[in-house]
This record gives sequence, C-alpha cells and structure tokens, in this order.
Amino acid sequence: MIAVLCGGVGAARMLTGLQAVVDPGEIVGVVNTGDDTELHGLYISPDLDTITYTLAGVVNPATGWGLEGESFRAMQALERFGAVTWFRLGDADLATHLYRTGRLRQGATLSEVTQEISRAWGLGVRLLPMSDDPVRTRLRLADSQEVAFQEYFVKLRHSVVVESVRFEGAETARPAPGVLEALESAEIVVVAPSNPVVSIGPILAVAGVTKCLTARRDSVVAVSPIVAGAALKGPADRLLVELGGDASAPGVARFLSAFVGTLVIDQADEDVAAEVEAAGVNCVVAPTVMRTHEIAADLARTVLAACGTVTGPPRAAPGAPGS
Amino acid sequence: MIAVLCGGVGAARMLTGLQAVVDPGEIVGVVNTGDDTELHGLYISPDLDTITYTLAGVVNPATGWGLEGESFRAMQALERFGAVTWFRLGDADLATHLYRTGRLRQGATLSEVTQEISRAWGLGVRLLPMSDDPVRTRLRLADSQEVAFQEYFVKLRHSVVVESVRFEGAETARPAPGVLEALESAEIVVVAPSNPVVSIGPILAVAGVTKCLTARRDSVVAVSPIVAGAALKGPADRLLVELGGDASAPGVARFLSAFVGTLVIDQADEDVAAEVEAAGVNCVVAPTVMRTHEIAADLARTVLAACGTVTGPPRAAPGAPGS
Repeated sequence: MIAVLCGGVGAARMLTGLQAVVDPGEIVGVVNTGDDTELHGLYISPDLDTITYTLAGVVNPATGWGLEGESFRAMQALERFGAVTWFRLGDADLATHLYRTGRLRQGATLSEVTQEISRAWGLGVRLLPMSDDPVRTRLRLADSQEVAFQEYFVKLRHSVVVESVRFEGAETARPAPGVLEALESAEIVVVAPSNPVVSIGPILAVAGVTKCLTARRDSVVAVSPIVAGAALKGPADRLLVELGGDASAPGVARFLSAFVGTLVIDQADEDVAAEVEAAGVNCVVAPTVMRTHEIAADLARTVLAACGTVTGPPRAAPGAPGS
Repeated sequence: MIAVLCGGVGAARMLTGLQAVVDPGEIVGVVNTGDDTELHGLYISPDLDTITYTLAGVVNPATGWGLEGESFRAMQALERFGAVTWFRLGDADLATHLYRTGRLRQGATLSEVTQEISRAWGLGVRLLPMSDDPVRTRLRLADSQEVAFQEYFVKLRHSVVVESVRFEGAETARPAPGVLEALESAEIVVVAPSNPVVSIGPILAVAGVTKCLTARRDSVVAVSPIVAGAALKGPADRLLVELGGDASAPGVARFLSAFVGTLVIDQADEDVAAEVEAAGVNCVVAPTVMRTHEIAADLARTVLAACGTVTGPPRAAPGAPGS
C-alpha cells in the first residue's frame, strides 16, 4: 500500500500518475484540510475537491481545480447581495459543498462524507482528510494582520508578504480514522509536490504524523514542488523564502529533511542535486512537471523506484532522458 | 399603514395589488416562517422568497414561486450523491439561500437578513418574518407518521390525509421586532388569501398575535383562499375538511371568525354570502382570483374599502361587475 500526503493540484496529478501504475485500491491519499473554509454557510474542502474532480476526470483542465464546463449563475446572483464572491463556486461544484454541508449538519464526520463523495464519483483511490477536527491555516502578513488561508490565497492572490503561518486547531486535532494506520503500514509514503508550507505543513502539524514519518524516514519520498527556483503553481517559492528558507530544490530538501529520506527533483535542477544530498536527503532527478498523464505515470514509477535507496549519488530516474 | 398576514403565492399577489393602490412604504407584510426548512445546510424561507421575488418582478410566472429563467445545475449535480432533490433549488435562487445562511451563521437575525434581501431587490413593501425564532409546521398523517411541512407539501405533494397540525416552537417563539407594533398600529390588518391552516395558522400561533387581532377584529379583513369549494392553490381545501371544518368560504369564515371582522369572498361564492354572515363575519363579494395585476389592484381596493364595515348585508365591491 502507498500513502500520499496531499495538497491540491500537484497532489491530484501525482495521484493520477500513481493510479496509472499501481492498483488504485492500494493508494491512500491523506489530504490537507487546513485550507477548508466555511462560506455562505457551506463547508468547503478545496484540496479534497480538487483531488476528487481530477481523479474522476471532470476537473477543469484550464485551472486544475473546479469542474469542467462549469456555470456561475449562483455566484452572479450573489453579487446582488454584496456577498463575498471572490471565492468562485460553480453551480455544479456547489452540489459537492451542499451535500458535504448537509451531511456534516446531520452529524456525519468529514471522513464519512469524503468516502461518500469518493464513492459517488467512482474513485479507486481512498481519500482521507488529515483530520475530522477543524484545522485552519492562518497567515500573519507583513502588516501584522492575520488572514485565513483562502483570503490569502484567493482574495489577495498570495501577492502579499507573509511573516508567519500557523495551523489553528492543529494542537488538538486528532488524525482522521485510518491516517496514522496508513502512514505506518504503507510500503512507501509519498509527499506529493504540494506547497510544503501550507499544504504539507498542516498535515505534519496533526498529532502523530511527523513522529510517524520521522520513524520511517527511509521510505518517505517527496517530489519537489519547486522547479528551477520557482513554484509550478501558487506561492510555495515566496513562502519558503519569507519563512526563512530557500526557493529551491535544496530548500525543499532542508525543509523536509527531518522525515523525508528521498527527494525527487526536476531535471532542470540537476545541478543542485549535490546540495540536496548535502541536506542529508537522497536525491533522484527526473521530469517532474506533470503536463501529461504519461509524465505523471513516469514520475510515479520514479517515486516508487526511488524508495529504499537512502544514500548514494544522484541517480537518473528510469525513463528519464539520459538514463 | 396596512399590515398583511402572509403565506406565499396568494399573499405575494395580494401585496402586488396593495402596492399598486397604496404607497408601498405604508405596507408591512408579516410573513409565515413555519414552512422554513434547513436543506443541505442552507436555511430556506419559502414564503419570504416567494413574496420577495414576486414584488421584485422576477418570480417564475408559471409556478408563482422561484425565479424566472432559472437553471438547475446544482440540483442535477446533487443527484450523483443520492441527496434530497425533491426540493428543487434553482442556481440563481441558491444565492438567496447562501446569502441568508451565511448571514445567519454570522449571527444576524432572520429579520435583519430579510431587510437586507428586501433592500437588495429594491422592495418598497416592508417584510417582517413572523418570528426570528424557529417555528416549524409539522403534520401528523393518517398513518400517525409526523412529517415536516416541506415533506408534506413538496415531497408528498400534499396528497395524503392529515390528522393534525402543530407549530413546533410556537409556544416559545417571540414575534419578530416590529410585528406586534405593526399589527397594533395598522389602520387595517389584511389576512391574505393564503392557506388558513398552514400559512396563516403559524403566524396566529406566535405569542400575542391572535390576542392583538382579536382586540381589533373590526378592522381585520381576510380574503378567502377558497373559491367555489376549492383552494386556488395547495391543500387548503383538504386541510380544512381533514381538520374538521369545511372547504368553503363560510368554512373559512368560521375558521377565522374569532379575529376577522370581514371576509372578502369570490363572486363564485355569492350564494353562500349569507352563511358567511351567519358566522358573525361581515361579507364582501368581489373577484378574488388574481389572474392579472389589474384584478389584484381591484381586490386591494375592495379590501381597503371593506374595512370599518362590520355588519350589514353582503355588498358588491366597488369595481366588481354588477356594482
């Protein structure tokens, strides 16, 4: 069994690749819920939805999130009331939030609803929210104002300086049923190429997760979300720098080194592979930009093959040009 | 100032007529919230919305409720989850429920949200929910099962036998701010042609309302929702019979006689006018089927003129054929 720590778009593509090369029933995604938010009374789980829609093959390919062919009549009508409309909820997407919210109000747990939604979309991969308890990522900006994740990410388009990040509720949040079991019993734990600070960070903050990964560090493989010094998507590069790290593959290695034995970095970063190794993290070089299903599947093979090798020189991945 | 006790469609048309002949700012609608329901985590106020959409001129003319030109993409998408979809929520209509629910969760009262929604639609009439506290109409069916109003009305299409009706929460619900003041200070209180049992009944069940109306019975004018022995819309006829009354204009008179001084009945019922008077209720005969704005306005004039006359023989209304 393979366990995958997941943020949104990058993780969704990683899972697509993994399920192309491994029986989907053998894959468990442990998904960040620090981005979850309540809006217009609805409970919204952006990362869970992005992954679900991607695995179901209905994601909007232009954005990597939301549904393909979506309409926005409800949002348009909300403008009349002067309500928050910077968080765009499509009409069909609303059904997911309505169903989840209705079930939560009936007393179901987020895990239970996630399973129901996964089943409705016919997913093979098993998705677990990191916790059924609320954890909310909050960011302190340079002006000392603290904002919720979606306000930072969507409303402010993450183009503001962040001074610090905290995961409200993480200190008391219990891992959702099955999370620690999956992270303990998996042959490999994959850290998807998601934002290490605000997508992987909240999962690590849930009680027991970091300890579990640290204990099995040699079989934990991460894929760097930073390629050639920049995040493929979102503010991972900025955040790494703003929080005192480096926006580079070695920066990611140093950020994760306590519990990640191997880091897969992009070919574009081959020249800094030694610097990754210097952080005490085994380094594998491979194409990591999952522009196509084929690249995602190749990356999945690389990730699975990388496991077990915790020291040694940088290696070219199987299937990578030049190998 | 004119106060109007309101259910949904019939009341919405009555208000349309009244605002055509009286300054809308002089009209206060006290609206039934016994039909309100929570669905998919959303707070839904069907009667308030029907009235709002009608007064804003955007109601679906085919149904008398919901928005014209509506789409149902969210509902369609909800079917995937096996969620309740017999209560059809249009995509644009969802915005109203999202806004209301969001504001209620922020701590606003239903009165406050109603005012905000009214303002957003530019309504002249002032709408007050009967109460900011929850009152839920529940119906015991012949098989002793008790169902919520919307389940009876929408899911079961009110084609089941009702043994009794109760208004859960009414015993402790306080009238919303302004309700008793409006009912006390209005020159006339109009009881709209709404279902006397399940639309007007919940309003009467709120503390102080019946007492207030009884004390000023002579200036309370109702319009019969029963024409020629049948309800124009919905199950008012069935309910009156099932609860031991009569599905007739005199049946309505007897049902309301404790606090209604005058009943306006349709021309089709002219032959039972004496029976209405026999119930101790002054009777006015006029066209009451508001098929057009003109008929609604004429009916409004009749209602306003009827006030003050509490005894005497049946009179033809001004503007009515034959008058």
